[in-house]
Amino acid sequence: MPLNLLLEQKTIHDLLLVFDLAGTFVFAISGAMLGVQRRLDIFGILVLSFAASSAGGIARDLLIGAVPPAGISDWRYLAVSLAAGLLTFVCYSPMARLRRAILIFDAAGLALFAVAGAEKALAHGLNPLMAALLGMLTGIGGGIVRDLLVARTPAVLQSDLYAVAALAGAGLVVVGHLLNWPVVPTTIAGTGACLGLRLMAIHYRWNLPVARPTEGGEEGGDRE
Amino acid sequence: MPLNLLLEQKTIHDLLLVFDLAGTFVFAISGAMLGVQRRLDIFGILVLSFAASSAGGIARDLLIGAVPPAGISDWRYLAVSLAAGLLTFVCYSPMARLRRAILIFDAAGLALFAVAGAEKALAHGLNPLMAALLGMLTGIGGGIVRDLLVARTPAVLQSDLYAVAALAGAGLVVVGHLLNWPVVPTTIAGTGACLGLRLMAIHYRWNLPVARPTEGGEEGGDRE
Amino acid sequence: MPLNLLLEQKTIHDLLLVFDLAGTFVFAISGAMLGVQRRLDIFGILVLSFAASSAGGIARDLLIGAVPPAGISDWRYLAVSLAAGLLTFVCYSPMARLRRAILIFDAAGLALFAVAGAEKALAHGLNPLMAALLGMLTGIGGGIVRDLLVARTPAVLQSDLYAVAALAGAGLVVVGHLLNWPVVPTTIAGTGACLGLRLMAIHYRWNLPVARPTEGGEEGGDRE
Repeated sequence: MPLNLLLEQKTIHDLLLVFDLAGTFVFAISGAMLGVQRRLDIFGILVLSFAASSAGGIARDLLIGAVPPAGISDWRYLAVSLAAGLLTFVCYSPMARLRRAILIFDAAGLALFAVAGAEKALAHGLNPLMAALLGMLTGIGGGIVRDLLVARTPAVLQSDLYAVAALAGAGLVVVGHLLNWPVVPTTIAGTGACLGLRLMAIHYRWNLPVARPTEGGEEGGDRE
Repeated sequence: MPLNLLLEQKTIHDLLLVFDLAGTFVFAISGAMLGVQRRLDIFGILVLSFAASSAGGIARDLLIGAVPPAGISDWRYLAVSLAAGLLTFVCYSPMARLRRAILIFDAAGLALFAVAGAEKALAHGLNPLMAALLGMLTGIGGGIVRDLLVARTPAVLQSDLYAVAALAGAGLVVVGHLLNWPVVPTTIAGTGACLGLRLMAIHYRWNLPVARPTEGGEEGGDRE
Repeated sequence: MPLNLLLEQKTIHDLLLVFDLAGTFVFAISGAMLGVQRRLDIFGILVLSFAASSAGGIARDLLIGAVPPAGISDWRYLAVSLAAGLLTFVCYSPMARLRRAILIFDAAGLALFAVAGAEKALAHGLNPLMAALLGMLTGIGGGIVRDLLVARTPAVLQSDLYAVAALAGAGLVVVGHLLNWPVVPTTIAGTGACLGLRLMAIHYRWNLPVARPTEGGEEGGDRE
């Protein structure tokens, strides 16, 4: 391989790692902020940081049989999560004012996790449909575990266009894989699609439709 | 193998697949109905559909080391789940009136999942006691994850003879395996036992005993 | 190997097994007591017993790829869990009065689970940092799943020096492994450190610091 191509590949790889760790950092902040709001102690806050940033990737790795999961075997993800958690613990008030900036970083993290998750699932031989879904899971899984740990219904199940953006990004990667598009532009397109959709959903307050239960009480369960 | 035996086997296999997908469909409806009641958006409803129908089987496959789990690698389970979720989203009101019919289908799904789960665990070399429990887990796991996702205590931990019926069906399969009974009648007996117990529990409102905490408050935890 | 050394090893192994099952027993009681308080039926109580005593070890085994997990493949853990659950169901009132004694046993269980978990993770080739964390997870995972199953925020995320004690014990084992200390004294030191810290935290009511959110409501989420 010629030297300049090799250097280019290394640059891309380094860039991806930086993005991945940046996504981990922002997701960890979202976990830590929820922990502070729920008055968890510092340990609980760090657990929420790690869960929010790594649970999606860990779930994906368990499901495709890649054990031990990268979130467990690579210390850098843990270190970044803990740093984000400690930072949030120390300066919660100024960070709470940056909520809009954090939303944008969160969208970037979502885009990268979804794309990288789909690529890893494809590399492990999953079928295309499931690779797209596992990409989405990588992006949204951390937030789901974070919310379950404080016993609330995951925000992603109720709120705006969050999972759909992740699915769009992951799906584009899978389509590119099926059509043999080159990897780098496909990755960029998938990341861009997810990020764009998510930012537009935030800006225009897009939401998915909700069904209206006209009959039966809130708790009128499916099982008598 | 003579042709008629081969044809018979194929018929049984097809029949099992139809039953399995029917169970998936009914369990997915139970998840989607809970999602509508909790006012989740369409994505949340589809997640609950898939979780309710597939989480039990996925948990079993992770525990016995069969990765990627069938619920992830075979697209038909996903497709049936999503179809059930969409159907529930569109026609929630008429379906809410069919609650009794859905309970009966749910009992059928439970029976089939429990029996098939126990058989898969035995095939992976689990010991008989654990194979029976994993069969039960296959049947009830989806409902547990469904309930956790909306942050409520799983109905199966509180309510009537649900898990016990699953355990009876799975246990019968394991006993048959230990005594070298032929597979087909054992499967039918296990399915029938679970289904019969469950329907009788619904009809006669059988419940398991509950202990009476006479001392210490509701929240008087085990840890000070 | 000389006979007396062999006998000594067997004694240690037997002792560890007794300790492990004792830890399982006490953790199962903590699960069952919570189940009684939440008015679960007998099946729900037994599920909470098993989850509280075995979920930590099962999660660790899934993460390091040791499937089927010991909690699933060895029937003794299940048998001890169920015995503890039944005992709690039958004599809840007298046991609720023994809360202080149970706290001490619980600390012993935590110490042993954390140390044994770290040793198993090291034996599976995890890096030292992660082995310490997986040891902690083995100790606290059961309590987390127990609390999630009744839809409350895990006590370990909010309360006193519980996880930190587990981490100290597991960390000492890992440090000993890195410095090539002999196994038996290291194990004893790790168990003692965790147990001592935990008992002192109970006695002196030590707690970890909590951040004070001065801005934004309780539910002012991280995602608008």
